[in-house]
Amino acid sequence: MTQQSPDPLLSPARAPTLAGVERAAAKVAELLPMTPLLPMEVDGRTIWCKAECLQPVGAFKIRGAWHRLTDLSPEQAAAGVVGVSSGNHAQGVAWAAKRLGISATIVMPSNAPKMKLAATRALGAEVVLYDRVTESRDDVAAKLLEESGGTLVHAYGDPWIIEGQGSAGIEARAQLVARGIAGPDKVVACCGGGGLSAGLALACPDAEIIAVEPEGWDDVTRSLAAGEILSVEDLAYPTECDALQTPRTWPINFTVLQARGVRGVVVTREEVRHAMRVAFERLHLVVEPGGAAALAAVLAGKVELGDSTLVTLSGGNVDPELYAEIIAG
Amino acid sequence: MTQQSPDPLLSPARAPTLAGVERAAAKVAELLPMTPLLPMEVDGRTIWCKAECLQPVGAFKIRGAWHRLTDLSPEQAAAGVVGVSSGNHAQGVAWAAKRLGISATIVMPSNAPKMKLAATRALGAEVVLYDRVTESRDDVAAKLLEESGGTLVHAYGDPWIIEGQGSAGIEARAQLVARGIAGPDKVVACCGGGGLSAGLALACPDAEIIAVEPEGWDDVTRSLAAGEILSVEDLAYPTECDALQTPRTWPINFTVLQARGVRGVVVTREEVRHAMRVAFERLHLVVEPGGAAALAAVLAGKVELGDSTLVTLSGGNVDPELYAEIIAG
Repeated sequence: MTQQSPDPLLSPARAPTLAGVERAAAKVAELLPMTPLLPMEVDGRTIWCKAECLQPVGAFKIRGAWHRLTDLSPEQAAAGVVGVSSGNHAQGVAWAAKRLGISATIVMPSNAPKMKLAATRALGAEVVLYDRVTESRDDVAAKLLEESGGTLVHAYGDPWIIEGQGSAGIEARAQLVARGIAGPDKVVACCGGGGLSAGLALACPDAEIIAVEPEGWDDVTRSLAAGEILSVEDLAYPTECDALQTPRTWPINFTVLQARGVRGVVVTREEVRHAMRVAFERLHLVVEPGGAAALAAVLAGKVELGDSTLVTLSGGNVDPELYAEIIAG
Repeated sequence: MTQQSPDPLLSPARAPTLAGVERAAAKVAELLPMTPLLPMEVDGRTIWCKAECLQPVGAFKIRGAWHRLTDLSPEQAAAGVVGVSSGNHAQGVAWAAKRLGISATIVMPSNAPKMKLAATRALGAEVVLYDRVTESRDDVAAKLLEESGGTLVHAYGDPWIIEGQGSAGIEARAQLVARGIAGPDKVVACCGGGGLSAGLALACPDAEIIAVEPEGWDDVTRSLAAGEILSVEDLAYPTECDALQTPRTWPINFTVLQARGVRGVVVTREEVRHAMRVAFERLHLVVEPGGAAALAAVLAGKVELGDSTLVTLSGGNVDPELYAEIIAG
């Protein structure tokens, strides 16, 4: 017996709200210190980099997972959770599940970075692999949910996940206030399925939101331009931004993004690599390709800077061989 | 006319104090957000890593420089400052001088990392090079001070510098308290000349202090064991820990370290490299060799862990080619 439909497309539980984001932020604040908001000068202006790569699992995904799992009923918690993720959400769910004593199964692509697979298993989660090109991860998850009666913890198409990711925006606002700065008036977010972008849109109602995707995986950018959800056309398109490889966004995300007039921006492989080198040299942070997309858009001049621009450095889980190759440039 | 003796060995201005450390911490807190105190599990225990590589200049050195330069008289400020540094102190002094509108000249070794030389110049300081093996950097500085009438800002042998570096310990104590943890009861610090170690000894009066040096540059370790100041014997001994390459400590540092029963520990090149890889993988922080020495000692089992062990990750300024080589392992 399933406790929740495996497809929120058909039966969304509820819409995410700013109040929900604020509740998530309060729960996260009890558990995790704020990640630093680091200034960087770009073209004579200061941008504010939210260093989510410093979260315990190396990515912001811990936020949404914690908000979702702490809101499960005792019955739901007993039946366990099923996550679907290229790796960072996997670790977020596994981390929260371990801390709460909930069993977690994560559906991950067989070509996910070795570091992400190992870290997810090390946190005690069961990992089920699928082929990114030939299989639908949602189908694999649906089958597992049928078998277990557990709860789906989707990587982005879930109101708790959206609200939880948005808690990064509540923190950033407080950190700017502490420095005597209003804003942010612009938010530049790395975008896969749109969980973080939608959460930040709710958290920062007065800011312009830019969602940044990698070349070839620009479905959200195209969807926002077209006014309807479009899918990635070539699921074999090569990218180093594994964290942003989502075939399509979901209505629960798209609705929020569209209502706020969010605009998509696309960055190239070389722009992402350059941003990783800048984060290395100037911030001394290890940022993975997908976590550097927003900074890449800023450094490439693809985003007009605001008076207080918030940029997410959303994750740092990258295999050392690839990182070494990129940094040596 | 010099306003201060270029050699505090002969005429130390005053002894550094806990009150001075607290005053420095208050000044630093007005300017810089606390650096994160990141937990890491080691052998089933939690150590607390103070991520000083996230400071604006990529190292804790900004603390002492800020404390020193903000305490200059208007006349001293007008005559400028002279620093002596392998690179991180250089950037700290240059950063503080630029912010305060004070002219800065920095004496740096000709083989300092390219990144450190470039960053110091980019901050507007004049750089004077010397040969690490054949020249005395203190002699070069003394000549510059005679010419300019400026104030020496020594990298470690200065009460303001010691107090300023100690502010990292005041922050760490507050951060532990915020997590409901007493301590630290043990402090493991990367050690060059002993400025940071002495500052932390003052800041954390109830903790056991361990000073960690790289192989070949273990003068503080040997000095503490011998009860008198000894020098590095082979100034050409190869090390990747350029930030810790100091020929000898000064009495103002040694007095504090000795009074507190500080013990030295020596780490190898491979132990340091391993620690840099662990910081990459588990914390997503770029730590330079000299900044990873303390963590190296912990990971190598050379330090018995306390109930709350503070470990400094003191800097992150490393050339990308070397970092790539080390991370690729």
